[in-house]
Amino acid sequence: MTNQIDNLFKHIDSKKSHYIERLRKAVEIPSVSAEAEHRKDVFKMIDHAQKELETLGAKCEQIPNGKQTLPDGQVLDLPPVLFGTYGSDPKKKTLLVYGHLDVQPARKDDGWDTEPFKLTEKDGKLYGRGSTDDKGPVLGWVNALEAMKELGIECPVNIKFVLEGMEESGSEGLDEILIAHQNTFLKDVDFSCISDNYWLGKNKPCITYGLRGVSYYCIEIQGVKQDLHSGVHGGVVHEALNDLIWVMSQLVDNDGKILIEGLDKLVAPLTKEEEELYEKIDFDVKSYADDIGAKKLISMDKKQILMNRMRYPSLSLHGVEGAFYGPGAKTVIPSKVIGKFSIRTVPNMEPKEVDKLVVSYLNKLWSKRGSPNHFKPIPLQGGRSWVGDTKDANFTAGRNALVKVFGVEPDYTREGGSIPVTLTIKELTKKSVMLLPIGASDDMAHSQNEKINVSNYIEGTKVLATYLLELGKV
Amino acid sequence: MTNQIDNLFKHIDSKKSHYIERLRKAVEIPSVSAEAEHRKDVFKMIDHAQKELETLGAKCEQIPNGKQTLPDGQVLDLPPVLFGTYGSDPKKKTLLVYGHLDVQPARKDDGWDTEPFKLTEKDGKLYGRGSTDDKGPVLGWVNALEAMKELGIECPVNIKFVLEGMEESGSEGLDEILIAHQNTFLKDVDFSCISDNYWLGKNKPCITYGLRGVSYYCIEIQGVKQDLHSGVHGGVVHEALNDLIWVMSQLVDNDGKILIEGLDKLVAPLTKEEEELYEKIDFDVKSYADDIGAKKLISMDKKQILMNRMRYPSLSLHGVEGAFYGPGAKTVIPSKVIGKFSIRTVPNMEPKEVDKLVVSYLNKLWSKRGSPNHFKPIPLQGGRSWVGDTKDANFTAGRNALVKVFGVEPDYTREGGSIPVTLTIKELTKKSVMLLPIGASDDMAHSQNEKINVSNYIEGTKVLATYLLELGKV
Repeated sequence: MTNQIDNLFKHIDSKKSHYIERLRKAVEIPSVSAEAEHRKDVFKMIDHAQKELETLGAKCEQIPNGKQTLPDGQVLDLPPVLFGTYGSDPKKKTLLVYGHLDVQPARKDDGWDTEPFKLTEKDGKLYGRGSTDDKGPVLGWVNALEAMKELGIECPVNIKFVLEGMEESGSEGLDEILIAHQNTFLKDVDFSCISDNYWLGKNKPCITYGLRGVSYYCIEIQGVKQDLHSGVHGGVVHEALNDLIWVMSQLVDNDGKILIEGLDKLVAPLTKEEEELYEKIDFDVKSYADDIGAKKLISMDKKQILMNRMRYPSLSLHGVEGAFYGPGAKTVIPSKVIGKFSIRTVPNMEPKEVDKLVVSYLNKLWSKRGSPNHFKPIPLQGGRSWVGDTKDANFTAGRNALVKVFGVEPDYTREGGSIPVTLTIKELTKKSVMLLPIGASDDMAHSQNEKINVSNYIEGTKVLATYLLELGKV
Repeated sequence: MTNQIDNLFKHIDSKKSHYIERLRKAVEIPSVSAEAEHRKDVFKMIDHAQKELETLGAKCEQIPNGKQTLPDGQVLDLPPVLFGTYGSDPKKKTLLVYGHLDVQPARKDDGWDTEPFKLTEKDGKLYGRGSTDDKGPVLGWVNALEAMKELGIECPVNIKFVLEGMEESGSEGLDEILIAHQNTFLKDVDFSCISDNYWLGKNKPCITYGLRGVSYYCIEIQGVKQDLHSGVHGGVVHEALNDLIWVMSQLVDNDGKILIEGLDKLVAPLTKEEEELYEKIDFDVKSYADDIGAKKLISMDKKQILMNRMRYPSLSLHGVEGAFYGPGAKTVIPSKVIGKFSIRTVPNMEPKEVDKLVVSYLNKLWSKRGSPNHFKPIPLQGGRSWVGDTKDANFTAGRNALVKVFGVEPDYTREGGSIPVTLTIKELTKKSVMLLPIGASDDMAHSQNEKINVSNYIEGTKVLATYLLELGKV
């Protein structure tokens, strides 16, 4: 077995330029889901991925995905979701692999140093839109299976691929398709793996076992029936924006403490075991603060900062709809304003219970305000938090793979932001879902100069192959 | 003399349909200064007004007004300012008349009941964009002079017309042109009259002798160097918008009381004489509140409400630049936000002193906040307040004219909003400026279904003619 792994790793190393070439071809297809003129390229990319999987021997099917109506009224075909079946041996367990083939928009003059749709290698980094989000990780699976095939290593699990083309545009249609296939394509799934997030830092691999949820709120305040001129009417009306600003000022203090009563009581208590996970994580607060350009963080303590990002709720104010937002000066008294804020939720905050506490707190504030204006707190649809079991067979296989490739224990992290497909897959399969990131924290997904390190791409291929072999042991 | 006035009024009544026809022709020219595609119509309207004045015998000159660069980079010619000289008898005094020929944008589907650029008479009202703001009042002068001419009544004063085409777009270029002509065209002006505001109510005429000023402020707060994802980073950074909302919540209380220390000490004390003016004013608080759609005002006392609008400062929050302002949900932590508010100022609040108090208060708040973010209070250019002398010859002539036409003592009002040209003319001529409104409070200038009542238009013509005759007596 050790020999097998050594051979596999050597073989993967020897195919480096072939894998880079594979990524180059994928990056060349500008599959930007958010831009109508690139919709055809998303379809092209789905076809391209299908060919890659079929070359390996997978059976593929494109699941049609209806229409999309853009805000300007234009109607576009949604790209199909690509289902791929690699092996269907009833004696083997089945792994579900999710990934996406669409990318964020990119133009050279957005501030890219290279052509975004031309993969460019420089200093051990592969620059290009989609290199790390998420074409590189998806092709990592293709590389891994190809390498095993080339070496005559049988894949010990069946794999079901779910590859979509609308992830960067809200995964439109995906949930409906997955729900419709709960008892068919998804029926025999034993575990799932998603490679669509990033290491916490630049040097040490991690496994992600949790996601914060989000509960989003609007505060609607209607004053007089139309916008008024502040010169003519200022000083006599109860201004809706004054009310709103006051209400919004009562939600969170300067230290990030949420002022909504009862919310902290919903948060799962910290166990000694969980606390130790944060202590072990390789994370430099100072360099994190420098990266985001913060002079000072709410705390400069590593464990506290990690827990604030991963396991405690946070409240952020996002903005105001209906008020003046342009540059310059406008002397309007806005008639109706809508304040926006959201709470990142964690176990055991049930969205419904959070909504109840928030609305009740807002109503209490409002009666304290004593304004004659019309007040309406509106909870929007949110997403719940998720935590996996780091001790289960799926996570154990992931951990063993990382140890074999990198020679170190991975960090166990939770993500502050939501990755909604994780929850959908978890709910539909009722089995373990693991997030196994390939890229590093500085890959600049969604930003200019997106890249994946050659080493992350190649070692990642090894991790995915090893993970498959490890899954065969459970 | 009584006979002369009687004849004049009868003559004006008899020419009603001719005057309405005159207004119809002007409204038909869609001289929207804010819309590039209508710029040519502003030029056309200036030419049209020049012809009207020349037919009366005035000498006209179009003063060129340079270029305007739009935010999209488009460069447009600014419409010239029309100078008209009606009489130049060195033995007569000289009146400056200001008005504007451009209008606000309007489209039928904005919610107009009629075509906005087609004057439509209904129930004694003339609907159309510019009918009351400000084509009707400008043509009132033309009607008045024409009527006097037709009856062989000599105009006892020389008149200098200043008619511009950019008032609805910040009067671009006007101040520069007026300043350049301080010692030529404006040299011999003895008094000025502006008809570009409205009665306080719908039934009783007024003379406006004061304007509040405005001091506008931006509060710029820069947090981290770029926008952040609230899921990934929420809970660890000092969010700029949280800071801003808190600072903005400390400026004015729910009763409209300005919290900036020292500001109230700058306000001129209320004299018994001034207080009596407010008591006399015909104003119904309940119907005012109904008109603007306010359930409850800050006070329901007539005198208090009038004083709050006319002679006390007020502070309004206008909005936030840099934060999320669209519909729906966006989970951004904005990097840099700019809060906007303004203070309506009154005598004796010197803008520089106001700026000093505001900036000092904001800095004090900021040090109390203790945030690591970057804070910058920015006073923008404002306009000072103005109060005229209601006892001088100009105001007396105005008052006498209103008494002769309406048989009642006019109300003496101040406007809450600024009309900057008033200040410019006052400063350049150093002589009395009076605001003599023609339209009623419900004329809906700037809004859908703008109108002028036929009676206001016709009686207004009488007022302007009588005012000219009264000016001849001083």
